[in-house]
Amino acid sequence: MALYVYKFGGTSVGSVERIKSVAEKVKKAHDLGDQIVVVLSAMSGETNRLIDLAKEMQSQPTARELDVLISTGEQVTVALLSMALHQLGCDATSYTGGQVRILTDSVHTKARIREIDDAKMRADLNDRKVVVVAGFQGVDEFGDITTLGRGGSDTSAVALAAALKADECHIYTDVDGVYTTDPRVEPKARRLDHITFEEMLEMASLGSKVLQIRSVEFAGKYNVALRVLSSFQEGCGTLITYEDSQMESALISGIAFNRDEAKLTITGVPDLPGVAHKILGPIADANIEVDMIVQNIADDASTDFTFTVHRNEYLRAKTILEQTCSELGARKVTGDDTIVKVSIVGVGMRSHAGIASTMFKTLADEGINIRMIATSEIKISVVVDEKYLELAVRALHSAFELDKTIEAL
Amino acid sequence: MALYVYKFGGTSVGSVERIKSVAEKVKKAHDLGDQIVVVLSAMSGETNRLIDLAKEMQSQPTARELDVLISTGEQVTVALLSMALHQLGCDATSYTGGQVRILTDSVHTKARIREIDDAKMRADLNDRKVVVVAGFQGVDEFGDITTLGRGGSDTSAVALAAALKADECHIYTDVDGVYTTDPRVEPKARRLDHITFEEMLEMASLGSKVLQIRSVEFAGKYNVALRVLSSFQEGCGTLITYEDSQMESALISGIAFNRDEAKLTITGVPDLPGVAHKILGPIADANIEVDMIVQNIADDASTDFTFTVHRNEYLRAKTILEQTCSELGARKVTGDDTIVKVSIVGVGMRSHAGIASTMFKTLADEGINIRMIATSEIKISVVVDEKYLELAVRALHSAFELDKTIEAL
Repeated sequence: MALYVYKFGGTSVGSVERIKSVAEKVKKAHDLGDQIVVVLSAMSGETNRLIDLAKEMQSQPTARELDVLISTGEQVTVALLSMALHQLGCDATSYTGGQVRILTDSVHTKARIREIDDAKMRADLNDRKVVVVAGFQGVDEFGDITTLGRGGSDTSAVALAAALKADECHIYTDVDGVYTTDPRVEPKARRLDHITFEEMLEMASLGSKVLQIRSVEFAGKYNVALRVLSSFQEGCGTLITYEDSQMESALISGIAFNRDEAKLTITGVPDLPGVAHKILGPIADANIEVDMIVQNIADDASTDFTFTVHRNEYLRAKTILEQTCSELGARKVTGDDTIVKVSIVGVGMRSHAGIASTMFKTLADEGINIRMIATSEIKISVVVDEKYLELAVRALHSAFELDKTIEAL
Repeated sequence: MALYVYKFGGTSVGSVERIKSVAEKVKKAHDLGDQIVVVLSAMSGETNRLIDLAKEMQSQPTARELDVLISTGEQVTVALLSMALHQLGCDATSYTGGQVRILTDSVHTKARIREIDDAKMRADLNDRKVVVVAGFQGVDEFGDITTLGRGGSDTSAVALAAALKADECHIYTDVDGVYTTDPRVEPKARRLDHITFEEMLEMASLGSKVLQIRSVEFAGKYNVALRVLSSFQEGCGTLITYEDSQMESALISGIAFNRDEAKLTITGVPDLPGVAHKILGPIADANIEVDMIVQNIADDASTDFTFTVHRNEYLRAKTILEQTCSELGARKVTGDDTIVKVSIVGVGMRSHAGIASTMFKTLADEGINIRMIATSEIKISVVVDEKYLELAVRALHSAFELDKTIEAL
């Protein structure tokens, strides 16, 4: 007897019919004798509908109240799925995040899970009940409702799987697995049977929106085997676990990209200790997330400092940076919000030289100018003009032979 | 400084604009320095929408899950109202029934309140916050969400007013008070400034759907001064308190009626002890509520037994009664589902003779045949053919001079 946590996203529970089909899938698994915990998102569109209502009430909705409001979305779906399971003769009990005591901190709308009390769920599972838990939400030490931020249902599912020591955590979504790159950009993109947590982290953070990044971190930290699969078609999806021998043979697992980047440079910054903090501090204080950071030492005892932010934050970040520029006596601020980031990701590159040069040569052969480079142990990212995105992805996909399966290489 | 509990029903919070106008009303009262607790229903139509969804999932939705589902309706409105108050610069905090610990029994979909923990609300009120509580819902000792049944938000409001020892509990609704009878039947119907709990109970239970009967019982039990008033127009509404000297001068406060009745008679029942139980036991076991009960002793050592039920239950009750008839060896079962009940209500009739005869004479003068009579201390009810309803109400309204104010009498 195995214990599985199944998570279904908003599209998978987007209508009465789809909830019924989720119920059938769950019942089928439960009938095999396994213990099943289901974590659900709100019906697709519902969270946005509620946020729109909130904005009609208050120009900047109070975070605590927003959590009270939007947490109703998942409460509706868990009740409906339990009813659908009862209709099929399958015993089930629904819980809100607060009821199974998914205890979080008090940072409303982006709370972090602290601990989970598994007693109620254990008792229900031992009674052969399916446990249906509202994703995305928890409760803080004061009994206030919190939510985990967009995509938080994935995190809920992984956290529950960790707390219950589940055999696998299945993330059902509208895609059938993790691909070597976005098939809309490169039709030859191939579904991966396996990927490591680290690779998945890099893929997710770079724009492969299959899984919320925090849930992958969580899964890695607690060693929860994650499986991404489709709600709508059969198949075994992509399994995400720690590196294994089979995977080592692949140099590169995938090509990730991100269209939402914008780049800012401050030039002629006096090259003194603490200057990076002086530049990025005000950006961080304004709650703007910084992605890539590159610092070039210039020859005149001054330095150029470049970083990327989300495109939506470009103008705000630029204004702040111009203020910093005059305070530091730096030369000037330049920027570009028509750039994208393209990355190759793979644990294999750790032990193989020459990956970077293959990447740069491939791009050069296509006449694509590289505007910025950043590397990590298992990833190399370049910033290029956005017009080159598709070309870069396809060229790299082909150069690293990602359209071929491992066996075929 | 006074403490008020304000309750707004579904129509009063039925749209973004209406919630904003409730916020303005609440802020105005709060600005006067009073402490305000607001209890809200779900947006009108929302509870029905959710119940319809539930029925699509499960032919007979599990009560526990139904409570998880429908309690979201009020959770949405309390969050939205808090936001609207924040937008007006008025500090406010929302709570679900479970969060202020409106502890109930575990009878899902019709739970009863056991106790309320006022600590959180007291602290907020002392911080000059408006407290906004989801009506209709609570939590049982196991932490499961419960609901109080239709109209339960009134009960929540009164229970909170009792727990907080509020000065008055204001029930805002779409009518501007309690009337001597339904103005749609008798245009001369007059709004009452005062009515007693007992009269209101009789009026409510007889079809004046202004307040949920349980909330009036509660208010009477805990001596909470209730005021019924309009969300949409100014005015002081109708105050419901214990009998006072002013009210004693009115013989009759109002005419209530109920179109939903059906009448069943079993004749020739052996007149033995316990026979009433044998007749009504199976009806109660089938969860059919019985309203009026009349037993006539016939001359042949047998008895005729008549009672009324809700018209929707007529056929079901008749089938059960026919079974009982053959078991008891009674003569036969007859019934009529085209009857109505008309009642005169007033604490004044306690100390005045002749009220009943005035009533019967008034009806006789109009040629209305009385099919059944039942009396209580402050009410006389008659059953008549439904075609006579309007005529009976208008004739009685005029006979007891209800169109005239007390001062004018």
